[in-house]
Amino acid sequence: MTLPLPAVSAVSDLRAVLARWRADGLTIGFVPTMGALHAGHIALVSQALSRCDRVVASIFVNPAQFAPGEDFDAYPRTLEADADRLAAAGCHLLFAPRARDMYPEGFVTSITLKGPAEGLESAARPHFFSGVATVVAKLLNQVRPDVAVFGEKDYQQLLVIRRLAADLDLETVIEAGETVREPDGLALSSRNAYLSPADRQRAVRLNVILADFAAQLEAGAGIAQAETAALDAARAAFDSVDYVTARCAQTLAPLGPGPLDRPARVLAAVRVGHTRLIDNCAAHPSAD
Amino acid sequence: MTLPLPAVSAVSDLRAVLARWRADGLTIGFVPTMGALHAGHIALVSQALSRCDRVVASIFVNPAQFAPGEDFDAYPRTLEADADRLAAAGCHLLFAPRARDMYPEGFVTSITLKGPAEGLESAARPHFFSGVATVVAKLLNQVRPDVAVFGEKDYQQLLVIRRLAADLDLETVIEAGETVREPDGLALSSRNAYLSPADRQRAVRLNVILADFAAQLEAGAGIAQAETAALDAARAAFDSVDYVTARCAQTLAPLGPGPLDRPARVLAAVRVGHTRLIDNCAAHPSAD
Repeated sequence: MTLPLPAVSAVSDLRAVLARWRADGLTIGFVPTMGALHAGHIALVSQALSRCDRVVASIFVNPAQFAPGEDFDAYPRTLEADADRLAAAGCHLLFAPRARDMYPEGFVTSITLKGPAEGLESAARPHFFSGVATVVAKLLNQVRPDVAVFGEKDYQQLLVIRRLAADLDLETVIEAGETVREPDGLALSSRNAYLSPADRQRAVRLNVILADFAAQLEAGAGIAQAETAALDAARAAFDSVDYVTARCAQTLAPLGPGPLDRPARVLAAVRVGHTRLIDNCAAHPSAD
Repeated sequence: MTLPLPAVSAVSDLRAVLARWRADGLTIGFVPTMGALHAGHIALVSQALSRCDRVVASIFVNPAQFAPGEDFDAYPRTLEADADRLAAAGCHLLFAPRARDMYPEGFVTSITLKGPAEGLESAARPHFFSGVATVVAKLLNQVRPDVAVFGEKDYQQLLVIRRLAADLDLETVIEAGETVREPDGLALSSRNAYLSPADRQRAVRLNVILADFAAQLEAGAGIAQAETAALDAARAAFDSVDYVTARCAQTLAPLGPGPLDRPARVLAAVRVGHTRLIDNCAAHPSAD
């Protein structure tokens, strides 16, 4: 397959390109993805381009972060379209490793975190962040970028990766990329492709409920009361609700029951038909 | 305290020195230690010097690899003598991080391995290799050496670290350093300092029993039979025996019951008085 930008799958080939760039004094940005790229991913690439001389994007659907019965096999794989988008965005290199190279026979290492990795997504997906942390540590060691950009759409993941990078003394700066939304507010997600037209209509409620929850908190409402209202709204709108909650924006520690006294993040995970959607937004305490 | 070689404790200071060396095109060797240095450590430093332009030794008594009730508090700390030995050996830099910098408030990450990390030392010290793997990953990310040298005295640890480096895509080459022994065969160990004169006399039997075990295997004895004989000898010689066993030299997988059909390692852990000693040696299958 001929791709419209340079592409490598072997780590040795990746490192050869990176070594040439470093020898020329160029800084390196990195955007790890699972492919099925949308405008949210491309915004992360653009952010990396604004910070670094060269940008590498990886595409790797990481089996270690899917549990049996989750959507690993069904996860959309659209390599040619992804490469077109990356090339158009100005990305310099696509790194698309093979699973057998990432996890060769004899691979036995796993990385786990407590703190921000506990609760929320971990309640529904207990092995998820270990799978994410392990593959991200590998990718960051393979690329050794100056800057890596992760989307705020996966806010808990962003905090886990920040913590991972700090705890393991990785030199990469972890940057947050703002969530990109459809005109009606639905956060872009590769999994939106699973939604039926009717479910797509219902999905828009997720951002509306979270924005309203954040607005209530910013207006001084008690956290427990606002959370109950948001949870009730989510239960009325969706087929099931994993969580709707306000947490400390830095640590994801629970807050409340009174008004906000620090920067918070409101986060939710719900099911619409067979599709699990997550979203989040910031909630700042009022100035007075 | 004035030390006889350059020394840093902050990672930022360490990285500043390393960056100057790399800018000059110098290769970097690394010998991580817990201090209480003896001729075995110095042999590792010499080996690193033979392979690299500059050598960093670290001294860090890692609390994460001691369980409650183990000898973390009692572990010998001899920084000035250690620095004298390192300087005399030609080591270029001592890195002596502080525990509060290695594990600051909020540190939540741990690395675990299956495979070579299972059994043997893990049976007596279940959290040991997670503590080792996590701190070694940190140290290797802090120093990013071309070569790091680990002693064969801790053979299981050596295999765990090789696996860790491969699995997490660390670029450092992990080299094995041969065990250095007293004239009577006792492997050098910082914990030998705990031995009473009478226990020191008994401790010499550990290497004798292992060397005899390996010789039996190399002469074509069945593994199960030779292992039973070695275990009986160890039980007669010591206050207790954690294990005496022959394992695959590459994976530490159990072998037997028949004669050796691949390179093996015979390993033992025993208690002499209050001191736990470990040792190991190679056993090669006969050529025919």
